[in-house]
Amino acid sequence: MAEDKKQVEQITSMSEDFAQWYTDIVSKAELMDYSSVKGCMIFKPAGYAIWENIQKNLDAMFKEVGVENVYMPMFIPESLLEKEKDHVEGFAPEVAWVTHGGLEPLEERLCVRPTSETLFCDMYANIVHSYRDLPKVFNQWCSVVRWEKTTRPFLRSREFLWQEGHTAHATAEEAQERTEQMLNLYADFCEKYLAIPVIKGRKTDKEKFAGAEATYTIEALMHDGKALQSGTSHNFGDGFARAFNIQYTDKENKLQYVHQTSWGMSTRLIGAIIMVHGDDSGLKLPPRIAPVQVMIVPIMQNKEGVLDKAGEVLDGLKAAGIRVKLDSTDKRPGFKFAEQEMRGIPLRIEIGPKDIEAGTCVVVRRDTHEKLTLQLEGLASGIGELLDDIHDNMLETARAHRDSHTYDAVDYEEFKKTIDEKPGFVRAMWCGDRACEDRIKEETGATSRCMPFEQVKLSDRCVCCGKPAKSMVYWGRAY
Amino acid sequence: MAEDKKQVEQITSMSEDFAQWYTDIVSKAELMDYSSVKGCMIFKPAGYAIWENIQKNLDAMFKEVGVENVYMPMFIPESLLEKEKDHVEGFAPEVAWVTHGGLEPLEERLCVRPTSETLFCDMYANIVHSYRDLPKVFNQWCSVVRWEKTTRPFLRSREFLWQEGHTAHATAEEAQERTEQMLNLYADFCEKYLAIPVIKGRKTDKEKFAGAEATYTIEALMHDGKALQSGTSHNFGDGFARAFNIQYTDKENKLQYVHQTSWGMSTRLIGAIIMVHGDDSGLKLPPRIAPVQVMIVPIMQNKEGVLDKAGEVLDGLKAAGIRVKLDSTDKRPGFKFAEQEMRGIPLRIEIGPKDIEAGTCVVVRRDTHEKLTLQLEGLASGIGELLDDIHDNMLETARAHRDSHTYDAVDYEEFKKTIDEKPGFVRAMWCGDRACEDRIKEETGATSRCMPFEQVKLSDRCVCCGKPAKSMVYWGRAY
Repeated sequence: MAEDKKQVEQITSMSEDFAQWYTDIVSKAELMDYSSVKGCMIFKPAGYAIWENIQKNLDAMFKEVGVENVYMPMFIPESLLEKEKDHVEGFAPEVAWVTHGGLEPLEERLCVRPTSETLFCDMYANIVHSYRDLPKVFNQWCSVVRWEKTTRPFLRSREFLWQEGHTAHATAEEAQERTEQMLNLYADFCEKYLAIPVIKGRKTDKEKFAGAEATYTIEALMHDGKALQSGTSHNFGDGFARAFNIQYTDKENKLQYVHQTSWGMSTRLIGAIIMVHGDDSGLKLPPRIAPVQVMIVPIMQNKEGVLDKAGEVLDGLKAAGIRVKLDSTDKRPGFKFAEQEMRGIPLRIEIGPKDIEAGTCVVVRRDTHEKLTLQLEGLASGIGELLDDIHDNMLETARAHRDSHTYDAVDYEEFKKTIDEKPGFVRAMWCGDRACEDRIKEETGATSRCMPFEQVKLSDRCVCCGKPAKSMVYWGRAY
Repeated sequence: MAEDKKQVEQITSMSEDFAQWYTDIVSKAELMDYSSVKGCMIFKPAGYAIWENIQKNLDAMFKEVGVENVYMPMFIPESLLEKEKDHVEGFAPEVAWVTHGGLEPLEERLCVRPTSETLFCDMYANIVHSYRDLPKVFNQWCSVVRWEKTTRPFLRSREFLWQEGHTAHATAEEAQERTEQMLNLYADFCEKYLAIPVIKGRKTDKEKFAGAEATYTIEALMHDGKALQSGTSHNFGDGFARAFNIQYTDKENKLQYVHQTSWGMSTRLIGAIIMVHGDDSGLKLPPRIAPVQVMIVPIMQNKEGVLDKAGEVLDGLKAAGIRVKLDSTDKRPGFKFAEQEMRGIPLRIEIGPKDIEAGTCVVVRRDTHEKLTLQLEGLASGIGELLDDIHDNMLETARAHRDSHTYDAVDYEEFKKTIDEKPGFVRAMWCGDRACEDRIKEETGATSRCMPFEQVKLSDRCVCCGKPAKSMVYWGRAY
């Protein structure tokens, strides 16, 4: 097996070089590839299939809460992008500009959407007239472009895939409810499908979205102790509505501005999956979004009856709705095992002449490496239970890792020492002043991740300046 | 009812002004809207949901024939676009150019993909080395941009949604097989899901794709007698492989060029659905891709028990996998009927106190306007059968329309007269010379739609020049 593992091109170990380990997995599990377009990546079949499963399940959750999908143009005229002051300041420095259509220069430059608030606002101004037209709860699945200087597969690239929801409501209360509802939905999705526990909270003003009144976030902790912002939900109040003049007549026939939200998750989530669950054998996919959940590896497959039986097992599991493949190539079993582990397939079934005789098969879990012997009769339900158990175990393992890497600090020396020596979240009190946030970032490299909904009063004083504290904050170095 | 119809903003009749009828449906069925970005459209929820159903079903058919989805960058560096001579000549005049990223000019211009042959070739040159790496059968769902001067909802816009498959094969035979396999799959999809019959054939050299050895097409006939190219499949031979140097070592260890194909269908299909099936009451959606298949309209809904029973019917149909909605708004039933017809929902269920007492409901077909009384007991299976029957009827109606609008012409006078007086396909013999094709287009406005796989020898002579004929061709005015 060790020999075969080498042949699957062994990857760098996490403890040795986490960044290289990450890049190795992206490449060896064939998730993504570099392209000839600087800063843009290629989603290979194994990587894109994960995104398809994320889309499918998240979209179903959206539809249950009344979200309707639309598709807006990928271009934004410069004058439209400029309508909301904070928004354009935040995005203009990092957009790609189209200046020519065909052989002719354009009358007005168009940027390739970095996000689509302005386009949705422009549409809402046209289609919202009366309280009867509200709420509008639209979403789109698309790619967006941000001209980043440094890029990293899934985490930061000039083009990435995401969903962006944009809503318009009659009242401030309804907008706030939707903002929180979608954040909670994101958190539930991460736990239920990705086996990733997250901290829910509000961003500080420094970290909020350009043009938002308030930004809410879910923050996950990676295996190396760095944080990853995994989804955000913004309440815009009526700021965009005023800039774009989105008004409706209420029941008393009075003109009112709408209140708006937006919320998004992206292909970053695949980066989170890699860095929360992966190990030195490779990728470890959460069963509910794994494109292949079970790989069947026949043993002594040239012996009569082995491939037939393996094919029967394949068909039986498929019929039960399990995503399963059979590896009947002429590679050695040990090599196939290593490949299945590298690609993060949650379960492996080994079946050879002895197993067939005994009416059993060997099932190996990717998460625990545990080997089990299961009866072929009723195999599908056993596999289904195991997949659920793997999900639960991965979630609990990730939660235990996060909790054991979450530290509290009440004075600044302790804070700095913890950030430096103990990778993870540091919880500390904050006075609410931007100056302290800036100083902490400059001196420690840590940023405020969020003011969690679940507040704990660790002390009365800001960890940085000692003034009275307003809020407990999760701090951390982040991707 | 006539009064209520007016309230649903009556549309122009087909016979009066087909183009306006089309635009009215797009707008009144709320499929699409104009945006502030010139030439780009907004897919509204009702329009996008049709595309989602097309995607879902077509993608499932792709996966059954070994297609794997990927996602490539949306930008193509100018030097890459220029590698294949015919290809760049065909596309360069109609692409959008990105010249600035953030605040800086780019070193090399990037075009927004009008199609992605060049990117896929660039990738294949990197990842194909040995015969063991072949075939590659990749597809992507994305949007593409072509800087069109005149635009029309779904049929022609500067940005549209599509899928583009790109394959690489060891042999010319395998590439030809894949080209035909995907064309046949497209034709099957159109019949099975869209209830649209198509003519399968090969494009003339004049009409083929820029850079292809051969282009195959499916052509559908719209209600006004104009043709719509609904999907194409191209065989590139080794032309792109030579331009991009995509070589592999074969089993005898010799270097060989790969053979390639590409194939695509787009949101044009929604235009086809409108123009093949629609009528003066509005849109008429084929049941298998209709986002809502059944609309329940309660009659006298304020009477006790009516809404409860309607809700029961809703739940029962939902549980049976039928896409169903209940319209319990306070609009009048007649208004709801007109709305359901305008939106093309295949079936309407009317249920009121009398029906409930009799244990029945009234079911109205969108395709035939036929009214049926069905038992509430076992309703789901009755509805399922009706939906299948509606599909079959829509397909047969479309086929009958097409066949009765397909004419043969053996001399040029007859040909011109037919094109002018009888909207539809005209079948005629052709010598194979570009000169005749150009002349026909100039003098009649008709283009060669395809040389159909099913050839019929109508005469020995070219309909235009009288020289010996090589092929029977479908001609027509086209969108």
